[in-house]
Amino acid sequence: MVGNKKVTIVMGSDSDMPVMEAAGKLFDEFGVEYNYLISSAHRTPDKTAEFARNAEANGIKAIIAGAGFAAHLAGVIAAHTTLPVIGVPINSSSLDGLDSLLAMVQMPSGIPVATVTIGKAGAKNAAILAVQMLALSDEGLANKLKDYRKKMADAVEEKNKSLK
Amino acid sequence: MVGNKKVTIVMGSDSDMPVMEAAGKLFDEFGVEYNYLISSAHRTPDKTAEFARNAEANGIKAIIAGAGFAAHLAGVIAAHTTLPVIGVPINSSSLDGLDSLLAMVQMPSGIPVATVTIGKAGAKNAAILAVQMLALSDEGLANKLKDYRKKMADAVEEKNKSLK
Amino acid sequence: MVGNKKVTIVMGSDSDMPVMEAAGKLFDEFGVEYNYLISSAHRTPDKTAEFARNAEANGIKAIIAGAGFAAHLAGVIAAHTTLPVIGVPINSSSLDGLDSLLAMVQMPSGIPVATVTIGKAGAKNAAILAVQMLALSDEGLANKLKDYRKKMADAVEEKNKSLK
Amino acid sequence: MVGNKKVTIVMGSDSDMPVMEAAGKLFDEFGVEYNYLISSAHRTPDKTAEFARNAEANGIKAIIAGAGFAAHLAGVIAAHTTLPVIGVPINSSSLDGLDSLLAMVQMPSGIPVATVTIGKAGAKNAAILAVQMLALSDEGLANKLKDYRKKMADAVEEKNKSLK
Amino acid sequence: MVGNKKVTIVMGSDSDMPVMEAAGKLFDEFGVEYNYLISSAHRTPDKTAEFARNAEANGIKAIIAGAGFAAHLAGVIAAHTTLPVIGVPINSSSLDGLDSLLAMVQMPSGIPVATVTIGKAGAKNAAILAVQMLALSDEGLANKLKDYRKKMADAVEEKNKSLK
Amino acid sequence: MVGNKKVTIVMGSDSDMPVMEAAGKLFDEFGVEYNYLISSAHRTPDKTAEFARNAEANGIKAIIAGAGFAAHLAGVIAAHTTLPVIGVPINSSSLDGLDSLLAMVQMPSGIPVATVTIGKAGAKNAAILAVQMLALSDEGLANKLKDYRKKMADAVEEKNKSLK
Amino acid sequence: MVGNKKVTIVMGSDSDMPVMEAAGKLFDEFGVEYNYLISSAHRTPDKTAEFARNAEANGIKAIIAGAGFAAHLAGVIAAHTTLPVIGVPINSSSLDGLDSLLAMVQMPSGIPVATVTIGKAGAKNAAILAVQMLALSDEGLANKLKDYRKKMADAVEEKNKSLK
Amino acid sequence: MVGNKKVTIVMGSDSDMPVMEAAGKLFDEFGVEYNYLISSAHRTPDKTAEFARNAEANGIKAIIAGAGFAAHLAGVIAAHTTLPVIGVPINSSSLDGLDSLLAMVQMPSGIPVATVTIGKAGAKNAAILAVQMLALSDEGLANKLKDYRKKMADAVEEKNKSLK
Repeated sequence: MVGNKKVTIVMGSDSDMPVMEAAGKLFDEFGVEYNYLISSAHRTPDKTAEFARNAEANGIKAIIAGAGFAAHLAGVIAAHTTLPVIGVPINSSSLDGLDSLLAMVQMPSGIPVATVTIGKAGAKNAAILAVQMLALSDEGLANKLKDYRKKMADAVEEKNKSLK
Repeated sequence: MVGNKKVTIVMGSDSDMPVMEAAGKLFDEFGVEYNYLISSAHRTPDKTAEFARNAEANGIKAIIAGAGFAAHLAGVIAAHTTLPVIGVPINSSSLDGLDSLLAMVQMPSGIPVATVTIGKAGAKNAAILAVQMLALSDEGLANKLKDYRKKMADAVEEKNKSLK
Repeated sequence: MVGNKKVTIVMGSDSDMPVMEAAGKLFDEFGVEYNYLISSAHRTPDKTAEFARNAEANGIKAIIAGAGFAAHLAGVIAAHTTLPVIGVPINSSSLDGLDSLLAMVQMPSGIPVATVTIGKAGAKNAAILAVQMLALSDEGLANKLKDYRKKMADAVEEKNKSLK
Repeated sequence: MVGNKKVTIVMGSDSDMPVMEAAGKLFDEFGVEYNYLISSAHRTPDKTAEFARNAEANGIKAIIAGAGFAAHLAGVIAAHTTLPVIGVPINSSSLDGLDSLLAMVQMPSGIPVATVTIGKAGAKNAAILAVQMLALSDEGLANKLKDYRKKMADAVEEKNKSLK
Repeated sequence: MVGNKKVTIVMGSDSDMPVMEAAGKLFDEFGVEYNYLISSAHRTPDKTAEFARNAEANGIKAIIAGAGFAAHLAGVIAAHTTLPVIGVPINSSSLDGLDSLLAMVQMPSGIPVATVTIGKAGAKNAAILAVQMLALSDEGLANKLKDYRKKMADAVEEKNKSLK
Repeated sequence: MVGNKKVTIVMGSDSDMPVMEAAGKLFDEFGVEYNYLISSAHRTPDKTAEFARNAEANGIKAIIAGAGFAAHLAGVIAAHTTLPVIGVPINSSSLDGLDSLLAMVQMPSGIPVATVTIGKAGAKNAAILAVQMLALSDEGLANKLKDYRKKMADAVEEKNKSLK
Repeated sequence: MVGNKKVTIVMGSDSDMPVMEAAGKLFDEFGVEYNYLISSAHRTPDKTAEFARNAEANGIKAIIAGAGFAAHLAGVIAAHTTLPVIGVPINSSSLDGLDSLLAMVQMPSGIPVATVTIGKAGAKNAAILAVQMLALSDEGLANKLKDYRKKMADAVEEKNKSLK
Repeated sequence: MVGNKKVTIVMGSDSDMPVMEAAGKLFDEFGVEYNYLISSAHRTPDKTAEFARNAEANGIKAIIAGAGFAAHLAGVIAAHTTLPVIGVPINSSSLDGLDSLLAMVQMPSGIPVATVTIGKAGAKNAAILAVQMLALSDEGLANKLKDYRKKMADAVEEKNKSLK
């Protein structure tokens, strides 16, 4: 189902897309193939498990899971694969994302979820983290990361100059 | 595996038993058949899903799930059954159970977890809640609940008298 | 007053209706008879107690109570009945519902409140939980729950397909 | 039952006595008549309501209520009397008293609870607050408050001197 | 300055007036004389101390202090008088009033602040609490409190009827 | 009273000394003259205000104030002086110092408190911060700060080497 | 780079300028020379370190650093200078500034950050704190601080009078 | 300095070793070469930056950083390398690790830290996550991860059986 994509960006509902598409855009920028998957830890648990179980065989290298409320999606996926799973807490409930953060990051001993910033900044950071993982065996990507870092630094300096 | 038990008390690790056995003791007091199951949302996800999927057919009426940290156990079970699932947040991490409380109670729309008090008081309350559900179609149990309530009231009054 | 309704949805003020009506709509969908009751733990405590005391005799099977701020309503009702009481924390104060969540879920040993998600998602989940309780002795409802679950899963898959 | 006491110190369980007796000791120091009452918002709700309803007629001037977990006791008493009710949050749950604080102080519009510090410092402060209320129409007490304040100041200065 | 007013409503800035005027309106309803005072714990500490020191001699019976951020106003006033001081935490900072709540309610042993609900509901509750204190020696006020309570109950019942 | 000391370390009670003496020890190490003062924002408000008002004239350059619970001490001192005031939140209440942190750091616009880490690490950091201020016009102290920084770095490297 | 400015106001991104310019405005009012610097702890770490390392030699006396999210900027600067560093937590993430507050104030033993109020009030307070430090060896500034304090007090009294 | 190790486990102080050694033990179990490094973001910032800058050239594939309080270590390292950085929040301050969690996970857009559970469970999970990254290009490690997962599952089932 996921072809020869390197990363799958999973979310439980299409209402999370405005946050999670920041991950896709970063992958576009880096030329990393990815796909989106809407699959819920609670509403489609078997499909979610099946996706996770087959991800490695399907060539997936890393999985990004974004979820709000009691965010189980990343943990449930991590339970069915030994690929690295990156969690993006989404602030969709009234608790500003503190609930989804704690429900993701506080995984018990044995099954990690690599948790990043709450919300859109997190979706982007999740994608960068995935690229960092892929770059461990892809020198081209490693170089792109260094360019990207340099461009970020230049942008900061540019803003600083325009102050004056 | 669960025979003709009415309630299964699930926990991810035997280290949660000192908390969760408060539920079993309450069932003993009410004469409700139950069993314990150690099954983890993350370490044995398939077994947990299988248990949940078959629970109704196995005659189970309600499931109590106790977990600490990012407590997904109750939600994962709830995703695989339409039986009522009662969650007991356990304060085993450094965050005093706030993490497990939010990871349980903040279930997204569609799949509820009936969450109770953090810790031992919660384990007992979970069992009382399960008895309340069973009592909806069991007049004997309903009467026992009223007796139990009366005994609690008497104990309060007894303590009040002993003040003087 | 509550006739042969199965569930009463109680709230302390009509300002909570926009949240709590999500419960009523769910019952409409399942064909479960219910009624709304505005009764306050603090402003009409005797009426609230009287309602709770008579609920079982009036044929009520489960009670849903929604409240914000220091949300005592569910606990006060639970103190006067042995029926299962489901609490919906409402985020009407400046604390985003954390106050009402803790004031509901942290019931001391002996009197449980089955607490669900803060806000509208919680109101809907409360109704599903009530249906799950009723379904323990109503095969028709049990089947409807399975259909509902299937429809939720189909909706997720539908959204996933429309991505492509 | 409460005779001609001026203040009743209510708690839901005798396990709260080690905290709440700080209130009684303060009253002893000020010569204010008081009594203790063990009565629970949840386990003996009718007795608690009855106490509150009759408190004014029984000559009670102020009520101090100490409770932990989802601390409803003060609010439930306040719902049944127009006497001032002072709430002492007790840190008996795993959440360090944050649950009982929010469950007391965040009373909805119309029924206040005068909430003080969590724990033993709060029990003492509750008693001082009650004395302040009584002193509004009792010049002797008002003078004792001033003496007490002076003694506290002297104790601070004494400690400062002993530093040197 | 405060003439023969019974209660002074103090706030540190006129920006708190939209919250605190809920207290004044309640006093208008009860016919209790009051005045407003803008005086800051930090910007006009001497004037605040002087007000507090003279309050009793000026016939003041209770003081209501509303403040946001690190809300010291109520505590500073309480340090200079033995009159009861009621604190209203105001949610003017980015922390939703949690900062002002803790800065008010957690007074150390010896100097209580009677803290109420955060925000507008709290301003109203502060005024009711002040009336409850005054009513201890004013039967007319005590009766008005009972009427007010009854009107609140009637309003709830009215809303309940209009549901049908 | 404070002679030609450069810094005064104020605390509300001698029970805070085990935390605050970490500040004094740091000053001993740097050869900065200081004294301790026990003075309470609430129990000895006039003495505290008087100390603050006279501090500058008495040659004091910076004031360190440590307090727990609703920690007003630093803010009250800051209200009576334009010297820099450094606040050390102390975790003496059940809320782990979150209450004292927020009651110190969230000072409203106009009167800052330079707040540092909760507890003993904070007491030491407060003293270093005071030395940093004094060093702005004292080259000897500025050099000592650089030596101290170097010693800290050496200690880290020493520990690293001893790993191997 | 920073000429003979006394204070540098650093921020990681120009999006923080609407908050941080409150510091600059205060310096304008006091006639303190300052400059702004956009430099990020994470995106331009070397430039940030270089700035901090050279700040003292460049005549800088105090550094103000404003940052949101996991706000490392102030701590990173403090690691490279022994000048006093003042941190302004900015509420740019979904957690209302609690994340940036804790990431600033909780500096481990040895390297303090003088942390002030979250947001705009904090930016202003940071500048006042810097002026207080500079005023330790600048009598003109010390007098301006007293005038400023008096003007704040007058403004409060003015508002109080306009109430009547 | 780090030879041909695959992972470096960095911590700011040897007092973090009792927590962080859980990571080393996991690597021992998997036969992954690693070393420990004590280097502080604040006390040895240049050495920390240098380590991070050279890590990739030194053959390091992933970096684990454990820190308490305002935990900047992981972010500071991440600012100087494009290798994946895994952060372990340590509960060494009075705030139970909430401060270090937020100071790690809430990294602003552009520089991710892969944050895991607070404390010892997190140290172990960090190591598993690092192995998962290495396993992307090391089939032997990938198989070991599957074996490890299976052993965890067996251990759960073993405990379940021993219940009976």
